[in-house]
Formats: sequence, structure tokens, C-alpha cells
Amino acid sequence: MRSIPTFVLLALPLLDWYVVFGYGIRKGPETNQDISYTTHYITQKVDHFGFANDNTYKQRYLLNDQHWRPGSPIFFYTGNEGAIDWFCNNTGIMWEWAPSFNAMLIFAEHRYYGESLPYGNKSFDSPNHLNYLTSEQALADFVSLIADVKQRMPATSKSPVVAFGGSYGGMLAAWLRMKYPSAVVGAFAASAPIWEFGDLVPLGGFAVVTTKSYASANPNCPIIIRRSWSVMDQLASSVEGREFLASALGLCNPVKSSAEVKSWLSSTWINLAMANYPYKANFLEPLPAWPVKAICSHLSDINLDHKELVHAVRHAVDVYYNYTGSASCYKTSESATGNLGDQGWDIQSCTEMVMPMSNDGVNDMFEPSPWNMTAVTEDCQKKFKLTPRPDWIIRQYGGRNISAHSNIIFSNGLLDPWSAGGVMQSISESLVAIVIADGAHHVDLRSSHPDDPISVQMARKKEKAIIAHWLGYQPKSLKATVGRNVL
Amino acid sequence: MRSIPTFVLLALPLLDWYVVFGYGIRKGPETNQDISYTTHYITQKVDHFGFANDNTYKQRYLLNDQHWRPGSPIFFYTGNEGAIDWFCNNTGIMWEWAPSFNAMLIFAEHRYYGESLPYGNKSFDSPNHLNYLTSEQALADFVSLIADVKQRMPATSKSPVVAFGGSYGGMLAAWLRMKYPSAVVGAFAASAPIWEFGDLVPLGGFAVVTTKSYASANPNCPIIIRRSWSVMDQLASSVEGREFLASALGLCNPVKSSAEVKSWLSSTWINLAMANYPYKANFLEPLPAWPVKAICSHLSDINLDHKELVHAVRHAVDVYYNYTGSASCYKTSESATGNLGDQGWDIQSCTEMVMPMSNDGVNDMFEPSPWNMTAVTEDCQKKFKLTPRPDWIIRQYGGRNISAHSNIIFSNGLLDPWSAGGVMQSISESLVAIVIADGAHHVDLRSSHPDDPISVQMARKKEKAIIAHWLGYQPKSLKATVGRNVL
Repeated sequence: MRSIPTFVLLALPLLDWYVVFGYGIRKGPETNQDISYTTHYITQKVDHFGFANDNTYKQRYLLNDQHWRPGSPIFFYTGNEGAIDWFCNNTGIMWEWAPSFNAMLIFAEHRYYGESLPYGNKSFDSPNHLNYLTSEQALADFVSLIADVKQRMPATSKSPVVAFGGSYGGMLAAWLRMKYPSAVVGAFAASAPIWEFGDLVPLGGFAVVTTKSYASANPNCPIIIRRSWSVMDQLASSVEGREFLASALGLCNPVKSSAEVKSWLSSTWINLAMANYPYKANFLEPLPAWPVKAICSHLSDINLDHKELVHAVRHAVDVYYNYTGSASCYKTSESATGNLGDQGWDIQSCTEMVMPMSNDGVNDMFEPSPWNMTAVTEDCQKKFKLTPRPDWIIRQYGGRNISAHSNIIFSNGLLDPWSAGGVMQSISESLVAIVIADGAHHVDLRSSHPDDPISVQMARKKEKAIIAHWLGYQPKSLKATVGRNVL
Repeated sequence: MRSIPTFVLLALPLLDWYVVFGYGIRKGPETNQDISYTTHYITQKVDHFGFANDNTYKQRYLLNDQHWRPGSPIFFYTGNEGAIDWFCNNTGIMWEWAPSFNAMLIFAEHRYYGESLPYGNKSFDSPNHLNYLTSEQALADFVSLIADVKQRMPATSKSPVVAFGGSYGGMLAAWLRMKYPSAVVGAFAASAPIWEFGDLVPLGGFAVVTTKSYASANPNCPIIIRRSWSVMDQLASSVEGREFLASALGLCNPVKSSAEVKSWLSSTWINLAMANYPYKANFLEPLPAWPVKAICSHLSDINLDHKELVHAVRHAVDVYYNYTGSASCYKTSESATGNLGDQGWDIQSCTEMVMPMSNDGVNDMFEPSPWNMTAVTEDCQKKFKLTPRPDWIIRQYGGRNISAHSNIIFSNGLLDPWSAGGVMQSISESLVAIVIADGAHHVDLRSSHPDDPISVQMARKKEKAIIAHWLGYQPKSLKATVGRNVL
């Protein structure tokens, strides 16, 4: 009932897919950081991997060097599916750690997002212009940017570079270290589902983790959500029922079928699971602390009748879409994840980033929905004249066989649906999995907060120590200087 | 006086460049191996790194499984600039080692060479068709081929794959392990000048090594060769002198300038250095054992006058072009390296494979010739409408900073000019440099020969032991089974 399989089956736009994926990183600015940066542009080849097209474009990147000293490290954020200033404003941990490492911060925008459009406003108008929107080209941009900075600022020439990234940005950070270990000494990949491809992980994992997250808030909650689908089907079978649904759920639009309502709700529950942070946070919509718990507080009575259940769902939905009380009605075509990614992730999901998922409605709280690659392919061809290559990412990045690589932190939160596609066990001494019991989608990349659970605090401490180790600091000096300059 | 700088300065075709590079691997079939293979074709994407072009082509590969057993390794030759059957017929060591490892042999043809032409006979007709001739695409072909074989032949699914390659093929083998360590457990990169880019090694190294190789045959030899350039200039300044040159050197064509003669001779001396094997070998032209020594036996008397010197050069040239006595005259436009590479290496030298070199005429026996990137660029644009990116290979493959990688043997012979661009010192326990004192261009990939010097024998023994180690064999079991099945 959500993500690609559902959307395809329901013939709804694939666009919603990236929205689900992109949600967690589109949080509003955190205010407890002193964030200031300068904006720069580097001329990049549109095609790093061919020589017939010598077009160039301007890639945006943001830089802060207030703490930096010659030879000190560079923390390099590998931008993902959105404008880079969002990531810059919302990856608090890089700002928090910069003083202790004297680190320069660079946030590099991913091509085809934000201002970094290879063909300006024509970037999305044809397969030929879309041809250069791939993870490989993005990695080559990052490597070229690092080389360019080191060339233009000689004092950085010996500065070790550490890659940081969350979600798809975490995948890019990990892949950057895997493919270009000469460019970065290590990568901190937060909530990076690098194995959410092919059959590397169970297709139902994402839905199961989401469901567990709700169950841990309240055991009845997923049961009620699962029951809600058939309730809505029944109600939507009559004119009167559809009118009731639209009214009770506070929709702006009349209900044409239960499918659109169920799809909207599924996306909402998933987005909430990703954003299940332990404190009030201002995302696209402001949310309370532990929002899944807040929602499930309305979905705890197992004995509700049909209409009571819909009302309960409405109260739950209010938590997400109307925490401040300013929304007048809800549109089922919008799951409140804004414009992040624009068309970009939609395209990437149709080419490289094919992440198969399914629901069975038994082990998860969603409606059964098998993965249908044929339908995905047809949809991509119809919309973009592009054919997915679902095996490619596995071939390109090695699938589960990554033990030859080194110096990557894979952190995942057990509350985060995307942990189902992540590296959850350390592979070697230098490919370290950090599992955060109380963590949602890359919570550890966010600024420290007084309400952070111990597991999040411990994760950050370990992550910082590992990065210090990559950079050659002795554990002792690090330990002696936590919170201060480690040098 | 040779290779790109010379050819560019003399406005001779860059084509000769690949010829120099390609020479060593274009040897005729060795007859002491029982070589039989089946020929196969795999459908490959023309563009692995973009989704707009869904064209495919048939890549040829050769396979021998006579010794193979389920689970045993696959030895995979990463084809370089030529038709794959030549490499298959002439990389004797793979055939020699196959029985002891029960190895399957696969020889994969490089795209744009031999039969593996992405756009058939139109492959070279435009920048758009040439766009997919890159090392990255070639590596992606190899990875896809390995994945395909493992999928179609389930008994190979757990077979470890070891990459083998010589010269540019050795670079590809090393890069395959560096970029795709999930695909190959290790790489045996023979005479792979992976550092012959940018300023990673001294630009004059190639010429210096060539000169040393001649000096070790006879100290007077490089002195006489160096002197020959001005002698030819003087002779070529008169009609009579040009006629004498053409006649004395046995040329088919009249001499228009000394430049063409000097260029032809420089290429000849370089090719001979690469092919300086310790036994008679049937290359494009049959050669005696230690051909550099044979040549220098004619270039040992320091007191020759001008005309005597030209006659001596003629005798030396005869060793290379007329060992069997069948040549009637020589064409200065042909340096007897045949059609290997066709147009392919010419293109690659104009895009990625820009290997800067220079001669100073002091530390080497060639005429002074600085590196001129501007001239190279203009030439490439004029000929192919392609602009070189001389920094790209260093960014893509990490330059000298490759210590994060593992399981690569870099073997180089001290007699081989290309050793100047190779990895000559071990970088780590698993990035092992093997230097062969008496080795010319990837002599260790050739079949064992009774006249192999001890250094070549020792190198092969060490290489075999390292590969066995990658494959999990205990040193003891290997030791007990040299020449027999190690299992």
C-alpha cells in the first residue's frame, strides 16, 4: 500500500516514491547552530565518462572554514536529492564537530537538484538531457570538486577528506569511499540503504520495520491501521460512505476511490516513521516529539466501529499535517514532503535506483502488494522514455560483497524503515555498523539535543571516535578533548 | 624523437603511438601450448553509464574449461587494444597455470577492437560513435561479463575470479580490482604503466629506461644511436646524402627529410627494447634471442665515420625487420607492428590515455623533445573532434594514492621502457611489486621457456604463490603441488 509497488499498481505517479525516500532529509533549519557559509560554483563536465559531449555546468557548493587550519581535515557532505542549502542547514553534527577537528565544511550539491542543473530549466525535458543524472556522474563531480579545491587552495592539499551523507547521500558517501578511496579517507554513511536493491534484502523488510516501529509505540496501533484499509474499502463502496470519508478525514477533495486515500495514508505513516525523532522538530510540517507515539495514542482502542476508526485516523493524521492547527483541509495528492527532489528522484528511481519492495499485510500493517518490475518498467518508459536497469547498482557497487573496502561507518536506526536495506552488522574492523536502538532516519546527523536518547548519544560518540581514528588522532587525545579541539 | 611528442612535433600520425604501446602484446602464436577455446558473444550495453542510449553490441570472449571443476577459479584476461584471439594465443602463463588451479580461462575482448565493435564498421566514424570507447566502459563490460557467466553457469557462481592482463590490459586488470573488488579477488597486472599520467613519474623515464637497456647490451650502443641523429640530419641536407640514406638503409621510399627516418628508427629501437626477450620469438617479425644485444653488436664501434655509421644502423635494423632475410626493402611509414589496435588506441590516446613523455638527449639516446600538450590537444581535435582530458585518469584511478586497495601484483621488467610508468615498489602486503631484472615487456605472461633467466622464473613462482594465496590455498599445499593440481 505504499511506495513503488503500490503507486504503480494504482497508476499513481511514481513521483510519490522519491517523496517517501526524500522525506527524512527535508527538515527545516535547526536553530541551535551557528551556521554561516559562502556559496561557490565549480565548472563540471556534464559527462565525465564520455568525450563526445564537452558541455559543462555550474555545480553549487557551500563552504565554511571558520575553524579550519592548514592541513586540518575537510568534512565533505555528498549532496543528495535536494537543494544543498537544506542539507547544509540541517546536518548539525558536521557543524558541531567542526571545531574539535578544525574541519573545513563543504556541502556539494547533487547534479540535477537545487541550482546545479546541467541544462538549466531544460534539464528534465528529454532523455538526452536526463542522461547524465546518475550516481556515477555525481561521484565524479564530488571527486573533481575535491581535486579542484585542493588545487586552488594549496593549504588544503594535504587535508584529509571525510565524506558525510544521509539517506541517498549516505549511499553516495559510502560509494565515494568505495570507488575513490584516494579522494576520501573514510565515509560516514547515515541511514544509507545500500542493499535495498535486487534481492539483497527481503523485499518486505521496509514494511516490517515500519510496522514494528508503530507496534513499539502501541501494540494495537498497527492492528488498527491494518484494519483501516478494509474499513475504507467498505465505506468507499457507497456514495454516502465516500462523502463520510472526505468529511471525517478533513479532505479538500471529494473521495473518488479508497485507493487514493489508502495510498495517501500509507505514505503518511511511512514518513512519520522516518521522522520519529525524540524531540519537537520543524520539518515541512512541525511535529511533536516521538510523533509515532503521538499518532498511535489515537489508534489504541481495538474496539472502534468503522466510523469511530475513521475519526481516530483523522486525529492521527492531524498530528502530522496540522500540529500547529493552521491547516484547513488535506489534499490526498500531497503527502507534505514539499518540493525536495523535484523531478530528480523520480528519474533516478526509473533508471538506477530501483528499490524493490513489497507488503504482505501479515507481517506488516499495509495492504498486500507484490513487487511488479514489469509495471515499474512500463511506467518509466511511458513517463520518461527511460528503461530501468535494476541489476546495475549491484554490479556497480558490489552488492553485499563489499568486504574489500575500508573506513566506512554505516549507521542505522531501528525505528527507521530504511534500516531494512542498510548494513546492520560490521563487516570488518573498518566497515563498522552502528545500530541505534531509538533512532529514526539518520537522527545521528542532526544536531545534539537534550532529549536525544542514550543510544543516539553513544552512536555519535563512537562515530566521532572512528572518524578521529581515520584522521590519525590517538584515542587518548580524542578522549581528553571531547567537546574541545582534539589537536 | 619517438612516441607522442615526436610524432606530434613532426606532424606524423598519432597512430604510431599506440603502435609503440601495443607492440609487446602483438606477438605471434606460441606453439608450445595446447590452446583450444570456444568463442562466445555477450550482449552488452553500449553505454553502461547513461540511460538515454539503450543500444547494445556483441562482445566476443573466448573460453576454455578443460581443467575446470565446479567452484574452481576463473582466470579472466582483461583484453586490451587488439583482437582477443591474439592475447588468448599468446598469454601462455594462463594456460600453463590452468591445470594446477583447475582454472577456467576467459579472454574478454576490449570494446572497439577485434570483433567487438559497438557500431560495427561505423564505430569510428563520429565522436558520437566513439563516445563509448573508454576504460570505464571496458571495465563495466568485464564486470557484466563475469556476472553473466556466473548467472548462466550456476556451477561457477562461487568461483573466485582472478584478473590477468599485460600492458594496457594490465592497467585494466589492476583497475578492475581497484574499482570492482567484488568481481575479482585479485589482479595480476604485468607491465602496467598505471602511473604514466600527468606528473606521476618523470616525463623522461621511458626514454631513460630504453637507453639503459641498450647501454647494458653495449655501453657504446646508445652513444652511437644518439650520434646517428645528427649524422642523418647532415646527410639529409643534400640530395646526394638523401639518396645515400635511402639506399644504405634499404628503404623502399625516397627520403624527403631526416625527420621521417629518425622517427622510424626511434620507434624501432623502442619496440625492440620492449621485445627484448631471452629466446627467439616470433612476433610480427621473427626476432633472435636478446634482440637488443644483437642490434648493439652492430653499433659498438665508436669510431665509425658518417657513412659507416649509417651502414651499421642498417645492419641493426636488419635484425628487426629482416631476421629471416625475406624483406626486400623497408617503409619508414611502417614500424612493423601490424594492425593491432587499428584506430582504437589512437582514439584512446586522444581522450583518456594521455601519457606525457619527453626526451632530453642527455640522459637518453633520443633527440631532445619536450612534451607539448597544446600540440597533442590540437591534433586530437583536428583528427577526431575529441579533446583530451589529461587529468581524468588520475582522478578516476587515484594516481599514486592507491594504498587503500588490495590484492594486485604489479610486475615490471627492468629492460622494459614501460617500467618507468609502473609500480616498482610494493605499497602494502597485498599490493606487491615484482621487479624482473632481466625482463622486457610482460615477459612473465608468456609461456615458460628453457632460456628464461632466473629472475623471470622466480617472478612467475612468486606470482603463482600470491595468486594461490588469494584463492585460499595454504603455502604448503601449493609448494607440494607445483606443476601439479594444487587442490
